[in-house]
Amino acid sequence: MEVLELIQSLEHTDSKLIQSTEELDKAIDHVVRLICDSCTLYLSGSYPGSAFLSITACEEVAKAHIGTFTDGKSLQKKSRNVFRDHKIKHLMAALPTIPMSQRLEDALGKDELQRIMNMAQNSGLVQARENALYFKRENSNLVTPAEKIDKKLSRSLALFAIEVFDDALVGLTNYSQKIDGVTDALFEQVKNT
Amino acid sequence: MEVLELIQSLEHTDSKLIQSTEELDKAIDHVVRLICDSCTLYLSGSYPGSAFLSITACEEVAKAHIGTFTDGKSLQKKSRNVFRDHKIKHLMAALPTIPMSQRLEDALGKDELQRIMNMAQNSGLVQARENALYFKRENSNLVTPAEKIDKKLSRSLALFAIEVFDDALVGLTNYSQKIDGVTDALFEQVKNT
Repeated sequence: MEVLELIQSLEHTDSKLIQSTEELDKAIDHVVRLICDSCTLYLSGSYPGSAFLSITACEEVAKAHIGTFTDGKSLQKKSRNVFRDHKIKHLMAALPTIPMSQRLEDALGKDELQRIMNMAQNSGLVQARENALYFKRENSNLVTPAEKIDKKLSRSLALFAIEVFDDALVGLTNYSQKIDGVTDALFEQVKNT
Repeated sequence: MEVLELIQSLEHTDSKLIQSTEELDKAIDHVVRLICDSCTLYLSGSYPGSAFLSITACEEVAKAHIGTFTDGKSLQKKSRNVFRDHKIKHLMAALPTIPMSQRLEDALGKDELQRIMNMAQNSGLVQARENALYFKRENSNLVTPAEKIDKKLSRSLALFAIEVFDDALVGLTNYSQKIDGVTDALFEQVKNT
């Protein structure tokens, strides 16, 4: 399902996930903390941990963004709440406006940016999320997160998460515009690695 | 179910999760990385992120430990693989030997140590794991991880995870005894905060 079609399919209700500017700012603070933690781990060479937190940041941005007009229940009664579905949260984070960001394209290159968008749209981030946390057997070998998530993917996901935050939430409140300086500085720091 | 009873209920099979010393050392490296990341975030004041990684470290210790003789399938055919069940992994991490550790009791105090053991045994860590990552509505308020996971809980979980690792895996291979110095140093560093 296309992301805009998906968003239209959600129930518009008074019991929204986010119910005030103050609550939105709390959610923004939480997202910025996730982004800071992701960058801290990336810059210390811990690529899987960073990647996991970047993906979580994208999920929480999607919740804060779409949660301003819905509580996440689908109109199709049997579907689970979209805010509890990793795949749908990744889809909602990867808005069509993300690849239009010039700074992200400059930092990642067109092909890498398209790869990350594809991962967000086709369950690739669901797999990456698991791969970033857990070891498992695969084709008769034990594989660990360090073998699955390299520096390049971790860097791309950190920059992607910052852009997802910037695109969806920055500008919605005064506070978001103030805190944007923190994530912009992290973008530059991670970009130059 | 008691933890030892649970372990006995697992199928003993040739297709174990961990099949060689080399693989066990890879899993140990991965666990130590999780512990290091948890301590990095804790020492930088990011308590929720640290708590989440400490709980994940406990889960991966349980997998590496119990995975040396089983692939995690239960003898009850309909049960899911125990290595995919957070609650069971927490139970398997909280071995009865953990509260016997003098250094952990000295660092946490008897009551706090018992609280963490209870959390591991009664789904408290499943809840803490979710609370450490995601914001949500609760009693008509929006609550974020920063409000759910404080410094004290984060510190306790980091020290608990190090002890769980030490108790279950250190001594099993030569490498585990070498890398133990890293986690012992982190234990002292976190303890003194």
